[in-house]
Amino acid sequence: MVSFCWCSCQFVGTMLKVPAHQVAGHLAEEGHLGPLVDDCGCFYKPLQSGNRGSQEVEFYESLYSDARIPDHIRRYFPVFYGTKKVYASDGSGLHPHLVLQNLVSSYENPSIIDIKIGSRTWYPQASEDYIRKSVEKDQTSSSLLLGFRISGLKAFVSKDSGFWKPKRKLLQTLAAEDVKLVLKKFVSSNAPENHDVQPDCFFASEVYGGSSGILAQLLELKAWFEVQTIFHFYASSALIVFDKESVLKGKSSGAAVKLVDFAHVVEGAGVIDHNFLGGLCSLIKFIADIVAPPIEKCLSNGNDTKSEKCSDGSLSTAKSEPLSLDPRED
Amino acid sequence: MVSFCWCSCQFVGTMLKVPAHQVAGHLAEEGHLGPLVDDCGCFYKPLQSGNRGSQEVEFYESLYSDARIPDHIRRYFPVFYGTKKVYASDGSGLHPHLVLQNLVSSYENPSIIDIKIGSRTWYPQASEDYIRKSVEKDQTSSSLLLGFRISGLKAFVSKDSGFWKPKRKLLQTLAAEDVKLVLKKFVSSNAPENHDVQPDCFFASEVYGGSSGILAQLLELKAWFEVQTIFHFYASSALIVFDKESVLKGKSSGAAVKLVDFAHVVEGAGVIDHNFLGGLCSLIKFIADIVAPPIEKCLSNGNDTKSEKCSDGSLSTAKSEPLSLDPRED
Repeated sequence: MVSFCWCSCQFVGTMLKVPAHQVAGHLAEEGHLGPLVDDCGCFYKPLQSGNRGSQEVEFYESLYSDARIPDHIRRYFPVFYGTKKVYASDGSGLHPHLVLQNLVSSYENPSIIDIKIGSRTWYPQASEDYIRKSVEKDQTSSSLLLGFRISGLKAFVSKDSGFWKPKRKLLQTLAAEDVKLVLKKFVSSNAPENHDVQPDCFFASEVYGGSSGILAQLLELKAWFEVQTIFHFYASSALIVFDKESVLKGKSSGAAVKLVDFAHVVEGAGVIDHNFLGGLCSLIKFIADIVAPPIEKCLSNGNDTKSEKCSDGSLSTAKSEPLSLDPRED
Repeated sequence: MVSFCWCSCQFVGTMLKVPAHQVAGHLAEEGHLGPLVDDCGCFYKPLQSGNRGSQEVEFYESLYSDARIPDHIRRYFPVFYGTKKVYASDGSGLHPHLVLQNLVSSYENPSIIDIKIGSRTWYPQASEDYIRKSVEKDQTSSSLLLGFRISGLKAFVSKDSGFWKPKRKLLQTLAAEDVKLVLKKFVSSNAPENHDVQPDCFFASEVYGGSSGILAQLLELKAWFEVQTIFHFYASSALIVFDKESVLKGKSSGAAVKLVDFAHVVEGAGVIDHNFLGGLCSLIKFIADIVAPPIEKCLSNGNDTKSEKCSDGSLSTAKSEPLSLDPRED
């Protein structure tokens, strides 16, 4: 059995498909349970087992009904259309799914990075077993040191080369310098697999910078997180999406930040989400350093050792190590 | 044997004494090893065992020699005069001490609160045993939920009543609502032990508010923590100090934020201190809500249940529960 588009648009009756641009989370491939998409902009996410599924539904319902959440903040979340039972991707039959906005359906060749925010991905009320596993993952990944970890990435290179999609496991455990390099490569025009070439950050000012770029959006979210005491987000991600070809055609990059994955959102109970906010501020510092780089950029070749003036006024000697990011998918 | 003032001021030869206004940390009482003070504004902190002592010395040396640290940030730290061997308070003989500025020597009747910042008080490189103990303390205290915990408090009430000094153990484990109440009582003129009286926040605007008040100082520190990648502060505290009587005499409150306790400071290694920053932002939200309260204050009596408009636009029903803070010292 297969599932079909749920809405009453011109695509009604269209088969649901495995998303072409998912970079993290469970993948609906090889008989696994994972999300599906239709042709009219919907993303079907299977409700997770235990109370995770119901918690995520509850979060979306509260996000779209709670008058305390400003509209300019809601736009950082996928639109929520409700839940629907559709045939699961693993062939197990009808399964309840969240019906959400497909965040990348309007992009021709989206470049996407999924960044799990927070140095701690577990909430105090979780089971001992869940906490133990999460603590281990946070300690062995970038999360504990950086306040976030890159969960997945897919960056458009060219029509001939397709996408750059480093192994997820490698991305999750990167050290600070390599995270900086990946965030630069993500907005560069030169081949990311070539370790001898410094990323040119060709799209950085268009995508990360500007009054409506990624940095401005992250700062708007930060301002909300400094005061909101409604939700605490654990193991949620910030997606950064844009379209390189649009920029090359002189159109908008479509640069957007979207928050996803809310199976572990708990009540704020009068306290700000200091764990998410701390991680968000750490990510902002990385992006800000690319937008307003410490030194004049335009390095002609790689592996230069040079004195670098940091944005906090510090002087550090940065040796550009080639980053071994295997372009093959994991 | 006793120790004497180290500098060559008019008090040279003065005996070192147990500080009158210490609210947290090891106390030099009943034969224990703890800090001492002299009469000319110095605070002698015994170097802690293991590498904690040398780490704290290293931190102070780097704080006062590193050109990347702006002068307006250095003023949030005690002045560091070096180290000196003086006779320890526990009678164990000569022991190396940090010689620091006595932060409260210029106050007649200082009100002091010590707030340990960060939801996590352990650093990734610490020993397993240290991490295990710290995790337990963070989980059983306010730290994990609030991003900080009150480590100690001593608030001047009046010449007749002396100081209000709740039990430390109780302070460390307060929930959000009670932390808010304590932070209000800290800047109130009415008797803090009387549970039937709402704190009047008489000194709030003078101490927490204004262009040079506590909130403004915390925000200046926050701006630095958003960009500095030099230090990560674990288990460090923010002291808030002021003098009620000065305000009543029409003088400045002397409201000041000072950071203390740096035995667990580690290198930032290119990443901001997202753990400290998150906790600092959480504390800022508590103070900001007192300075610009969600509703008109001036409650005539306690135990009112009323609808409260929060600064994030939220509506919450706040029942004022009397807080059982035993005024006796622990």
